[in-house]
Amino acid sequence: MELKNNLRSETGWEIIENSFSEEQLVTTGSNFMIGNGYMGYRGTFEEWEADRFVACIVTDTWDQAEGSRWSELCNVPNGLFTQLWCNGELLSAFEGETLNYYRALDMKNGLNQRKMLWRSPSNIETYLQVEKFASLDIHHLLVLRYQFTAKEDATYTMRTGIDGNLWSINGEHFKSVKSGEKDGHLFMDLRTGELETQVVVVEGIKITGPAPTKTTIIEEDQRILREFTFELEKNQEVILEKVVSVTHDNELENPLAMSFEEVKEGLEKGYEVLRSEHMAKWDKFWSVSDIRISGNPEAQILARFNIYQAFIATPTHDNLPVGARGLSCQVYQGAAFWDQETFNLPMFVYTHPDIARRLVTYRHDTLDGARRKAEKLGYYGAFYAWTSGKTGDELFPDYFFTDVLTGRPIRNHFNCWQIHISPDVVYGIWLYFEASQDWEFMLKHGAEVIFEVAQFLVSRVHFKKDKNVYEFIRLLGPDEYHENVDNNAYTNYLSKFSLEKACWIYNQLKLNQPETLSSLMDKCNISPQSVEDWAEISNLLYLPQPDPHTNVIEQFDGYFQLEDVPPEEVRKRLIDPEEYWGWPNGVAVATQVLKQADVIQLLALIDDFPDPVLKANYEYYEPRTEHGSSLSPSVHALVASKTKHAEEAYRYFIEASTIDLYNASKKVMSGGSFLGGIHTAAAGGVWLIIINGFAGFKLNSKGASFKPALPEFWETLEFNLVVNECLIRVEISQSKILVQSQTTNKKEIGIELSEGLKHLKPGESYQAGIVAV
Amino acid sequence: MELKNNLRSETGWEIIENSFSEEQLVTTGSNFMIGNGYMGYRGTFEEWEADRFVACIVTDTWDQAEGSRWSELCNVPNGLFTQLWCNGELLSAFEGETLNYYRALDMKNGLNQRKMLWRSPSNIETYLQVEKFASLDIHHLLVLRYQFTAKEDATYTMRTGIDGNLWSINGEHFKSVKSGEKDGHLFMDLRTGELETQVVVVEGIKITGPAPTKTTIIEEDQRILREFTFELEKNQEVILEKVVSVTHDNELENPLAMSFEEVKEGLEKGYEVLRSEHMAKWDKFWSVSDIRISGNPEAQILARFNIYQAFIATPTHDNLPVGARGLSCQVYQGAAFWDQETFNLPMFVYTHPDIARRLVTYRHDTLDGARRKAEKLGYYGAFYAWTSGKTGDELFPDYFFTDVLTGRPIRNHFNCWQIHISPDVVYGIWLYFEASQDWEFMLKHGAEVIFEVAQFLVSRVHFKKDKNVYEFIRLLGPDEYHENVDNNAYTNYLSKFSLEKACWIYNQLKLNQPETLSSLMDKCNISPQSVEDWAEISNLLYLPQPDPHTNVIEQFDGYFQLEDVPPEEVRKRLIDPEEYWGWPNGVAVATQVLKQADVIQLLALIDDFPDPVLKANYEYYEPRTEHGSSLSPSVHALVASKTKHAEEAYRYFIEASTIDLYNASKKVMSGGSFLGGIHTAAAGGVWLIIINGFAGFKLNSKGASFKPALPEFWETLEFNLVVNECLIRVEISQSKILVQSQTTNKKEIGIELSEGLKHLKPGESYQAGIVAV
Repeated sequence: MELKNNLRSETGWEIIENSFSEEQLVTTGSNFMIGNGYMGYRGTFEEWEADRFVACIVTDTWDQAEGSRWSELCNVPNGLFTQLWCNGELLSAFEGETLNYYRALDMKNGLNQRKMLWRSPSNIETYLQVEKFASLDIHHLLVLRYQFTAKEDATYTMRTGIDGNLWSINGEHFKSVKSGEKDGHLFMDLRTGELETQVVVVEGIKITGPAPTKTTIIEEDQRILREFTFELEKNQEVILEKVVSVTHDNELENPLAMSFEEVKEGLEKGYEVLRSEHMAKWDKFWSVSDIRISGNPEAQILARFNIYQAFIATPTHDNLPVGARGLSCQVYQGAAFWDQETFNLPMFVYTHPDIARRLVTYRHDTLDGARRKAEKLGYYGAFYAWTSGKTGDELFPDYFFTDVLTGRPIRNHFNCWQIHISPDVVYGIWLYFEASQDWEFMLKHGAEVIFEVAQFLVSRVHFKKDKNVYEFIRLLGPDEYHENVDNNAYTNYLSKFSLEKACWIYNQLKLNQPETLSSLMDKCNISPQSVEDWAEISNLLYLPQPDPHTNVIEQFDGYFQLEDVPPEEVRKRLIDPEEYWGWPNGVAVATQVLKQADVIQLLALIDDFPDPVLKANYEYYEPRTEHGSSLSPSVHALVASKTKHAEEAYRYFIEASTIDLYNASKKVMSGGSFLGGIHTAAAGGVWLIIINGFAGFKLNSKGASFKPALPEFWETLEFNLVVNECLIRVEISQSKILVQSQTTNKKEIGIELSEGLKHLKPGESYQAGIVAV
Repeated sequence: MELKNNLRSETGWEIIENSFSEEQLVTTGSNFMIGNGYMGYRGTFEEWEADRFVACIVTDTWDQAEGSRWSELCNVPNGLFTQLWCNGELLSAFEGETLNYYRALDMKNGLNQRKMLWRSPSNIETYLQVEKFASLDIHHLLVLRYQFTAKEDATYTMRTGIDGNLWSINGEHFKSVKSGEKDGHLFMDLRTGELETQVVVVEGIKITGPAPTKTTIIEEDQRILREFTFELEKNQEVILEKVVSVTHDNELENPLAMSFEEVKEGLEKGYEVLRSEHMAKWDKFWSVSDIRISGNPEAQILARFNIYQAFIATPTHDNLPVGARGLSCQVYQGAAFWDQETFNLPMFVYTHPDIARRLVTYRHDTLDGARRKAEKLGYYGAFYAWTSGKTGDELFPDYFFTDVLTGRPIRNHFNCWQIHISPDVVYGIWLYFEASQDWEFMLKHGAEVIFEVAQFLVSRVHFKKDKNVYEFIRLLGPDEYHENVDNNAYTNYLSKFSLEKACWIYNQLKLNQPETLSSLMDKCNISPQSVEDWAEISNLLYLPQPDPHTNVIEQFDGYFQLEDVPPEEVRKRLIDPEEYWGWPNGVAVATQVLKQADVIQLLALIDDFPDPVLKANYEYYEPRTEHGSSLSPSVHALVASKTKHAEEAYRYFIEASTIDLYNASKKVMSGGSFLGGIHTAAAGGVWLIIINGFAGFKLNSKGASFKPALPEFWETLEFNLVVNECLIRVEISQSKILVQSQTTNKKEIGIELSEGLKHLKPGESYQAGIVAV
């Protein structure tokens, strides 16, 4: 089927670019990228260089660029770099003529493919066929097959090797580079400027077809290459297979040796074997994670595209964060924000709990960073970083935006007032724990985080004695246009949630694991008085209630008194279209216009408000939301679906799921160079829309419940969920829903449909009608 | 002696302008002004019109100009308007030639005088002699004697009457004007646009000398005039005497009748009698208020100039506020700020307690406005207006400054975060009460204010349970460059002061006046629990302490972590010299650079810190202060004097006392038209420097103590003080101090000098040496 933005799909599993478009170069680089959670390799062409945004971003390589305040992931040398000249003319989509163009992302198998018949300026045709992947089996490997066929007799020169000419959005990251050839492989051995992290790229090749007439090794500035010359006759074909290993010493003791070893073994296995081992892993992933939609081919593609992107952004080999732009670029530093817990985690919790456990364990691994942040700001306990890399220390700078009107940096307070990040981390842990019942995790990691967040909240909250309430003062909620507010609904409710969980776990441990509790309390320096404080604050914390007349919850103290004017009006007040709308003096600050709606977000997460409250709040806040955040459409779609705003739900679903694919994101990086990348949270949000929204899935203490409301032209929706170690298969049509507990399950599982709760034994299924509300 | 700025003085009692200066027209209008606390009449020439900033600003006429957000005092029609033509040529300092020019402000007698020999363009000379005053005896009256002498035979035309062509900084104030002649007097009868206040100007004249050959009444647009033609021979002289009454119906039931009556009676008395009655009142004022300095003629003039200006700015006929620019212009709306209590009130407390009582009673009169403000912002009790006019409702707008870089209004928070205004009001009441022991005032007015301020503080404070302290969050201290700070030292100490006084008065009333207490508590809805809260908050309120190593008190939480860079450096960062330095993104915000030093201000008011603390804080904050406020130099002079920084004390004394006279004020009214006026608080501050600083006066429960430290070239300093109804005379030289209790006193008074405390009976004196510390 034809998609928007010059794209099509044939089987519902791939994205194909209809014709090469130079204007879309930045976007297609992201959309066609390959990756495996360890590294992200942009879907660029092999002959391209830094100026066309070739990049391989590797997780766990945070380093501060020289002279910069930003600690970000490294873009590492490009081991797949390959250029081809036909009679001295460089094969390039920018020169000569490109016929039969085909570029595809095969999402089923995690492959990037290119085919083109290229007619050189001198009118000689060459057929090129390329396929590459970032191995899901051996996470350090990039593997390429590069095949070209002479359509007439011609002399071909191919250079292939490692291109160390890199671009980085905030400056150079490598202070030293060694390169050379060893054991028949090319290598680059680099050290980062700040932390001296060793990063290694080793490249090995195999050439099939007519032998080259000449072979040379070329060492240029920042490049090491092999040059081959071929005298080809018409229809002769050369195949280059390339295995590249990218390693670093934050993961490995001897990355150089490991990379040589991996390249050697890879070449021995050969392209086909490496490819089939890689594809087997993708098969395994999709066997649980695929969502099948019939009746709406575009939605089918969009669902898979977003699941694909959300998955390749997520480290699975270690406990590391999901970057807000994944591994698609350096923007947002490859670091985790609150999005990780609220947008990315749920999909893994319910499909790949092993990956979810890595993500929540990452928060435990970075607890000391959160402790340091709290202490630095005069609190105690754990105040998680707004921008969290390896150590959990705050990576977000005091000055983020620049005022485009004055050129003066703006002191935003994302890093110090957006305290909801700590309760969000607890929310994530609880989500994982509730679905997995993983007590081992809770005892070893989760409880400590939850206790320390509770301690932080104690140190942050204020008591109003005359009103007998606790209040949180000077906040920034998810809606970043309103800094410096009090009793932000989202923050206060999530904080109460955190404190309640802390008390609950404390009581459980006291009953069942008193020694564990005792050592934990010693470790965290928590007294019984602290626990009483948690309970008291949780009981007396001010929670803005639905207004008795309108049911609307006020986003923060005084919000209703702000100017009530629609976003379009506010947009007209911009002096410069690039202006930031928020703090300190942006156009939205004194109005009710929101970047994203905190109350809607709250209703999406804390799912126990009655339907009229959901509806009233959706209807109040939706028209006041500017959707300046890429997180906004998915949460609106979810709540629109729950509140039976079916058309809007579908519209927001399309918006959320096409932000990247249709290049529809808002560019807001004022004052810094911007490279569009994948909006990872939006990708994760698409899963939430379909599963929590359209399928109406909800987990509670009795089990999984479903209240489906499919978009009207969807015929069926099928997907799998993992709940408490049980894999269930769900199939929904417009009229009924079928839930099957897989035979391989080992436990009963509670399922609640319109006809009530049933406990399914392994192999059993439950079908019920769908009640339109 | 010659002064700076084209000025001189002959007797130390007058300011004389050496030559007419057009460039100084705005400044001299203020500096030579006359007034009586009811109205201020700028020291302009009789022939001038609105374009040369002629103005008569009348207190108690607040009205919002059409289309403006500003409620300000009215500039009323000019009843002294008089123009003279010699052979058809208008007498004017801008035409022809001005010989023997003399313009003087006689501060001893409250007279404005002008003499000039004017040579017309046609070379005919006229001698002009003018004197005018705003009567201190009958506060509605402006009185003029306008005398001209023909130096050759010539035809003179004189027009005199009421000029209703007004300028107002924020637009028209009068929506209807009636004018005419009645009973031989001219009148204008006006109504303001917003509140329909009736304002009346009635003018009567008497002409002495050769009779006019022609007399006409001319009614022009906004003017009513009489025209006289005189055919004069050489040396013939005409004297015009004018009596003008300005009234309004906020004070009087029938202002029109009253003005006619007053003009009639005034003309009957005649100029000489009106003048001597007026001068007698000035004599009476100076008999207590004069400060005599020998050895430093400039300081003598400056002291008197500032006392004069502080006095004529202060309403004495009713309970009304002292405007931040007095009655010299409309800037700052003729309204009271915290300056009233901290800078203006003390001089009256210790010299004219009757006037002081009016000022503090004004705060009681406006208590309902303060209650309304508190309620509007979600508090209770009394939150005084940052800008307080007649009713005490907040006159300060949400948007005050305009960002000169973007043209966008700035949401400053003077009106909602600068809560110290309420404790400042209590401070003022206490100052008056402590010096006067006026229990009748306290019972009738003071206690209610103090209780309501305590209630406000209860509703504003937050408790940090984990630290067991109360905190004030989100403040703006007097240093307005740092908004949104916590635990501002000035605010917290003053709040504790307020709460302590509330408890003390409560306990006194409970013991001595239980019925008064009971009815007061009913009226203010105060329970015994409230009073316990006052005590608890007062005990547990966080007060930033002098650092144990450096003795420096931190201005607010986190201040020491701000960038420590001198004001000159910060100034270099301005993009536009007119930029506001403060909120939200001004150059000083993220630095330690202060508009004025809150801790210095605190040390000046709460006078019980040990000397090393005073010294350390002065030395820390002084170099970090930009003195963006006209209040800053006087408080620095005061504390510099106390900490023996004699040279700086004198330098700041000169700075404070010459802000207006030498036209040295910083212009900061970004985005609005600015008319320099008198900096009333700086004028009041000069008294503080001399009395509390150089004379080292301090009142405590035992009586008045003095620790003098005269500037080194002052030979003697003499002044009077009124303490607890006793008038004392103080004479200080470099080596000794003499204090005399006046024979007319009725009580003993405690005096503490270097040789200890003595109780002086009426008529007794006490002399002691001065100990240099």
